[in-house]
Amino acid sequence: MLIIDALQYVNWTRALFEEARAGGVNAIHVTITYWENTSEALANIAEWERRFEEHSDIIAPVRKASDILVAQNNDKIGIIFGFQNCSPIEDDLSKVATLHKQGVRIMQLTYNNQTLLATGCYEDRDSGVTRMGREVIKEMNRVGMVIDMSHSAELSTLQAIEISERPIAITHANPSRWHDALRNKSDDVLKALGQSGGMLGFSMYPFHLNNGPECTLDDFCGMIMDTADLIGVDRIGIGSDLCQNWGYETLEWMRSGKWTFKPDYGEGNAQNPEWPKQPDWFESSKDFGNIANGLIAKGMSQDDVEKVMGLNWYRFFESSFEPQ
Amino acid sequence: MLIIDALQYVNWTRALFEEARAGGVNAIHVTITYWENTSEALANIAEWERRFEEHSDIIAPVRKASDILVAQNNDKIGIIFGFQNCSPIEDDLSKVATLHKQGVRIMQLTYNNQTLLATGCYEDRDSGVTRMGREVIKEMNRVGMVIDMSHSAELSTLQAIEISERPIAITHANPSRWHDALRNKSDDVLKALGQSGGMLGFSMYPFHLNNGPECTLDDFCGMIMDTADLIGVDRIGIGSDLCQNWGYETLEWMRSGKWTFKPDYGEGNAQNPEWPKQPDWFESSKDFGNIANGLIAKGMSQDDVEKVMGLNWYRFFESSFEPQ
Repeated sequence: MLIIDALQYVNWTRALFEEARAGGVNAIHVTITYWENTSEALANIAEWERRFEEHSDIIAPVRKASDILVAQNNDKIGIIFGFQNCSPIEDDLSKVATLHKQGVRIMQLTYNNQTLLATGCYEDRDSGVTRMGREVIKEMNRVGMVIDMSHSAELSTLQAIEISERPIAITHANPSRWHDALRNKSDDVLKALGQSGGMLGFSMYPFHLNNGPECTLDDFCGMIMDTADLIGVDRIGIGSDLCQNWGYETLEWMRSGKWTFKPDYGEGNAQNPEWPKQPDWFESSKDFGNIANGLIAKGMSQDDVEKVMGLNWYRFFESSFEPQ
Repeated sequence: MLIIDALQYVNWTRALFEEARAGGVNAIHVTITYWENTSEALANIAEWERRFEEHSDIIAPVRKASDILVAQNNDKIGIIFGFQNCSPIEDDLSKVATLHKQGVRIMQLTYNNQTLLATGCYEDRDSGVTRMGREVIKEMNRVGMVIDMSHSAELSTLQAIEISERPIAITHANPSRWHDALRNKSDDVLKALGQSGGMLGFSMYPFHLNNGPECTLDDFCGMIMDTADLIGVDRIGIGSDLCQNWGYETLEWMRSGKWTFKPDYGEGNAQNPEWPKQPDWFESSKDFGNIANGLIAKGMSQDDVEKVMGLNWYRFFESSFEPQ
């Protein structure tokens, strides 16, 4: 079974690559940046190029979707580069193509806060896609870079779906009808996403789960079945949002960047600022099998389980990563 | 009579400094940047430091308001550094203080387009002041940097007035009741600005004028009198928006920055893309006397004319440029 995880942010070690391979993972969309500018993004990409050399027996870069199948055949994990924010293009439209050439295939238009392109899900008001945002979407469409609205606000997301000529993605979020959180998505957004041929990746980050770390596998898989009913079983996949092997200082940086002097607690709070505990059925990349089994137990067909676990993302990437 | 111009963007030469001095100008808020990032802003500031050395007999930097009086006494023009956009701080709150140390005393939160801080007047929708915008306003208040909302949208401007603990400025714009343009300001904005102790600088940029370059001095001075009635004669000054000695490529860059591949025509259009012609009563810095005379001719008292021509800006800067 092809397994693709459409979002992870891991402090990678050899052992963690091996764990992911043992878990049967064939491709991972890895986070290259949160707040980094062009120069910092290029440094992070260069670090990955060194990883590809050092661990060439276990990971390989994904530039086009078929690289995932090649990786699978060679028992390697395909690595897809993505930005969680548009900061790496700074204010320069031409950098979309530059960074696509560096291998970047997915970019969020916002990360929680407002950007030059759109509004993030943590702002009070949402002005939608901006003048520059429209130009960037057009350019991402042209070069073959997926627009990801996981951390964006409602109107911005609806407009991105409408403006983009190619289907977009929400790589890691859940329906807010199941668990109401700023990061989860309304039925309106999910339906528009599905109707446009876009993709939703289900998150296992505890703040996005009903009952947090206590969320049951049965509850989670039920939510997947319900979402399949709402937007179609071809429009959903996994985007675990797995964060592994980071200290608190990284979480604080993810939340507060350089935009505030006092800490922003994001989905946590001052009493509970730390990384949340993962649910026991998804502690790491070794546990993807639990989700597949959970879906089977809920009565999903084997064919549909394979779609959700990886095939849908594969087909989506197949039509997304090439220039127009 | 003290003459302060609260906005110019000039491709400076010795001759143009001399022209401004001949026009009796004592201080000018000069534009250091439109779209530049930190590094580019520092380079532009360094260029000014070289100008201060080369033309030390005619210009001098203004770090605190009293530097303007010293310049006046020495028959020099005081130069106030300002940014027309927040791009020089990039995404880093700490750069407000860094750039204040470099002499920057005024910064716009937006230049036409949406930024990390607020929304510009050319966007379709206005989300107001953002999470980072609130932090930046607080920091600008603390270090003594004036918040300028000349190119910002309505809600963003109203919120900046409300959020800022120190009065803010609209250094260069006119009332939209007089000439309806995206860059001019509603009565609501002007009244809130005046009531909060803020300042409006009247623009002589033709796109902001009733009848453009054909606007009469009488009409312009009548508008000033009406605005004095609306928000108080202590709350108004001049911010000519004089742009001198630039070619079309600079105008195109001001409008389009790096955010679009196809040219944006700003206040012009494809048939009329060029720099507009100045009205004959204000062709350059030599013509400030015409405005003073025009106000006298409309019946404004000498005391009030002196306030409008420079004293109001002086008092405003006196309480704005020092740390809290």
